Amino acid sequence: MEKIKVIPLGGLEQIGLNMTVFEYEDEIIIVDCGLSFPTEDMLGIDLVIPDVTYLKQNREKIKGFFITHGHEDHIGALPYILKEVNAPIFATLLTMGLIEHKLKEHKFEESIDRVIVDFGCVVKVGKMQVEFVKTNHSIVDAAALAIYSPAGVVVHTGDFKVDYTPVYGDAIDLQRFAELGKKGVLALLCDSTNAERPGFTASEKTLGKTFDSIFHEHENRRIIVATFASNVDRVQQIINTASAYGRKVVVEGRSMVNIIKTAVELNRLSVPENTLIEVDEIPSYPDEKTVIITTGSQGESMAALSRMACGTHRKIKISPMDTVIFSSHPIPGNEMAVTKVINELLLKGAEVIFQDTHVSGHACREEIKLIYTLTQPKYAIPVHGEYKHLLAQENIAKELGITSDRIFILRSGNVLEIGEDEAKITGDVPCGAIYVDGLGVGDVGTTVMRERQNLAEDGIVIVTLVIDSYTGEYLAGPTITSRGFIYMKEAEDLLEEATILATEKLEKLRGQGVSDWGRLKGAIRDVLGDFFRKKTKRNPMILSIFEEV
Amino acid sequence: MEKIKVIPLGGLEQIGLNMTVFEYEDEIIIVDCGLSFPTEDMLGIDLVIPDVTYLKQNREKIKGFFITHGHEDHIGALPYILKEVNAPIFATLLTMGLIEHKLKEHKFEESIDRVIVDFGCVVKVGKMQVEFVKTNHSIVDAAALAIYSPAGVVVHTGDFKVDYTPVYGDAIDLQRFAELGKKGVLALLCDSTNAERPGFTASEKTLGKTFDSIFHEHENRRIIVATFASNVDRVQQIINTASAYGRKVVVEGRSMVNIIKTAVELNRLSVPENTLIEVDEIPSYPDEKTVIITTGSQGESMAALSRMACGTHRKIKISPMDTVIFSSHPIPGNEMAVTKVINELLLKGAEVIFQDTHVSGHACREEIKLIYTLTQPKYAIPVHGEYKHLLAQENIAKELGITSDRIFILRSGNVLEIGEDEAKITGDVPCGAIYVDGLGVGDVGTTVMRERQNLAEDGIVIVTLVIDSYTGEYLAGPTITSRGFIYMKEAEDLLEEATILATEKLEKLRGQGVSDWGRLKGAIRDVLGDFFRKKTKRNPMILSIFEEV
Repeated sequence: MEKIKVIPLGGLEQIGLNMTVFEYEDEIIIVDCGLSFPTEDMLGIDLVIPDVTYLKQNREKIKGFFITHGHEDHIGALPYILKEVNAPIFATLLTMGLIEHKLKEHKFEESIDRVIVDFGCVVKVGKMQVEFVKTNHSIVDAAALAIYSPAGVVVHTGDFKVDYTPVYGDAIDLQRFAELGKKGVLALLCDSTNAERPGFTASEKTLGKTFDSIFHEHENRRIIVATFASNVDRVQQIINTASAYGRKVVVEGRSMVNIIKTAVELNRLSVPENTLIEVDEIPSYPDEKTVIITTGSQGESMAALSRMACGTHRKIKISPMDTVIFSSHPIPGNEMAVTKVINELLLKGAEVIFQDTHVSGHACREEIKLIYTLTQPKYAIPVHGEYKHLLAQENIAKELGITSDRIFILRSGNVLEIGEDEAKITGDVPCGAIYVDGLGVGDVGTTVMRERQNLAEDGIVIVTLVIDSYTGEYLAGPTITSRGFIYMKEAEDLLEEATILATEKLEKLRGQGVSDWGRLKGAIRDVLGDFFRKKTKRNPMILSIFEEV
Repeated sequence: MEKIKVIPLGGLEQIGLNMTVFEYEDEIIIVDCGLSFPTEDMLGIDLVIPDVTYLKQNREKIKGFFITHGHEDHIGALPYILKEVNAPIFATLLTMGLIEHKLKEHKFEESIDRVIVDFGCVVKVGKMQVEFVKTNHSIVDAAALAIYSPAGVVVHTGDFKVDYTPVYGDAIDLQRFAELGKKGVLALLCDSTNAERPGFTASEKTLGKTFDSIFHEHENRRIIVATFASNVDRVQQIINTASAYGRKVVVEGRSMVNIIKTAVELNRLSVPENTLIEVDEIPSYPDEKTVIITTGSQGESMAALSRMACGTHRKIKISPMDTVIFSSHPIPGNEMAVTKVINELLLKGAEVIFQDTHVSGHACREEIKLIYTLTQPKYAIPVHGEYKHLLAQENIAKELGITSDRIFILRSGNVLEIGEDEAKITGDVPCGAIYVDGLGVGDVGTTVMRERQNLAEDGIVIVTLVIDSYTGEYLAGPTITSRGFIYMKEAEDLLEEATILATEKLEKLRGQGVSDWGRLKGAIRDVLGDFFRKKTKRNPMILSIFEEV
């Protein structure tokens, strides 16, 4: 009996880090290669990428990366992973444009084969074939993948929604999903992000009317719109509305500028002539004749909108003449940051609109039911989301009559072997999250992270001591220095008392003939740890540094 | 012309930290004395209290603290502030019970005068009088205050909602608000928390039916309900429902146990006999005959529910037989923590219900309009909330015909002088947020906080050097040690290179006759800072410690 293995390497424990391996005999294809953004306990971390030990162990099997769309949680790990695993990339036009831009930014030098695939085309790599099926999402050129193998057809939706009236291009190719279903789909990996939400996600196009009425009501004011840089359709609608109202458009924020440039080059965004102006030209136009499209809709502290809000943007000053539209929802975890920016904008007198100015890019319950009903998969594998989202999709699948034994909520690393008669988890491969901090990939692990957490919580106390290497005498110190623990100038008494305690302890141990540095350092840690806990209820890191002369 | 001063010392820049000074001639009364919880950038901070420099400067004027209700953001700073400013406390029964419990926990030893005030009673202190007016809120015994002074009557709503059918006690005393309005209200300080929300907040009692239907549908399962410890009415309804379904009730979580004990003692909560059992007795009853009421509805990592969810609770294990109800909404900033707990509970097989199982304790727009319409204040001062909430209330006040010149959105520290003919901000007093970290109050300021942020982000590199005090020779070092920067075992090359750079720099400076420690340390900071930035794109704190022998 033919079998295909499905091995998720990320994306099932959180939003982001999407990467799934499909393995048939001695061939592997990889779907997506995403990063995730650090949670607040990952101190100092810039981003997180999947552990691809399994791919490194199976380099010779890999036929290529198949990318569903150009969001960071699907392409963001490529510059890192490609260094480990060089394989061709297959993607649609805009997706590839964004990948190429990303590799350029990372000064990626190795040559990587790249194939731009049209919707409906089938790519043959070894014994498997992959068809790109048109879907809709909050970025143009999103694709579902139909993966053909001798074991059967597996459909991976990627991130998707059903938009009957998209802004650019066609609606999702529901006919093709139906055809695939009619012929027989072995397994469906379907987006779970909105599986808890009832109904249908509204069409992107509904926002055109919203923008029109906001622009109409605010004809005498400057308008600033913050949205996701990658939402090309959203940007298109803002530009269209601006153009209709005779306003010039300024694009602010590096990622926004980059993506718009790429989208225009690839004909995924059309800007009427004489509409775009540079930020330096703003003073030449009256407020009511300009629109600023900007990054920062998630309250990111370094983004353009946040800098405007807190008055540190060099070229754009917020005034009571401004109406700021958040065309976005806060991603979970960003609520406070967004609220902070809103409050700062209001304090500067701006009007802020943040309700009913966004639609999701993900399928709600009824859309998920539609895809299941069209594809009629034998096995269901909910993907993309936290556990509660996966579970919500499992419940949808059950409602549709798929029995529990045919639904698999996987964990990253699981090896699911699927055949016509049976599917089961047969093992696990290494997987995990690798921290990227600055130029370091994986060099900040649990030890360093624990140190940072300890330092962040209560700071550090450093005890230095100079020891005579012949006599064992203490030539200088113990000297106590602290950072992030207590305001040293006002804690002189405390630190003096600590110094006396450390000195007494060291002298006592020397009297007992103890000269082992490990024991001496341990004793200092104990005596000072207890002392500071008692006096301050804090647990600073206590680090002893001995120098021998 | 008689004037009364209104001086908020907190509560206008964020949720929490509520404290307002009312000053008439040489007399001061203080309304509320709350804390706020640290935001995520306040590393290691346990809680935040208001700066009361102004009160310390005016100790002799202070007539007392008038507390509107027993929530932490209204009473939580008392144990700290009372140490600075000893003055009598006036509060209703449950509020005083919770204050006394709090002082006991803090081992507060000074004697403080305490007066329990009934609703409708007027307390005379010097030239001012304060009446406690019954309101509704998510804690029993909440009061608005009518402050009578020769300058006029000022009404402070405290936190409130309009509940026509409260679980315990009477509905808000709308007749009294109307009487006050009829006689003339000089100024209204009104809760803004829900000023952005349309309509009316639902009655607490509506949840009785919700619990009944959930208990009915889950007759064969154990039920766990997480809610705010202080919401005595909520707890009452859970207990009532449990009792109706013949279930025993276990109370888990220290604050929940404490508040329930206090509420029972003060007759604010009635528990049917033989309903409460101890956690140790759980195994004696079948799952479907028990209900656990627990803390942790905000995902607090050390709370009982979080410990159950991650399997570290010593006595309660989550199983697929459990239905967990979150009878709460995540407070902004806690969304991720709550989601984490929900995912963990689901992973253990529990069913989780978190929708339509909570009502707010704050007035929505129509309730705010009602209070304004009853009291007809001359001046409006929106309080309790972030700037966007205050602004939303300002807009309500304007809709009701109060002109802009009669509405004051204050900042903490503002001195607003109000008289019959005029109100204006005439100055500012010192104010701010004081950090409490362990036993330290205010000893962690901006310097220490910046150090913690730096340490958290990229760790610390310590350079030690032993110098001969006679010759200026370097006897040992420079030695480089790091914590939270990089995994030292795998970064030997990097640290060795850094050591060489530091050594070269020091030798060079010595050759030039530089012996000033400040200059030497500055040079090390520069050379290593540049080096690490180039090699790692990180900015660790660089600390040089010199020892002289």
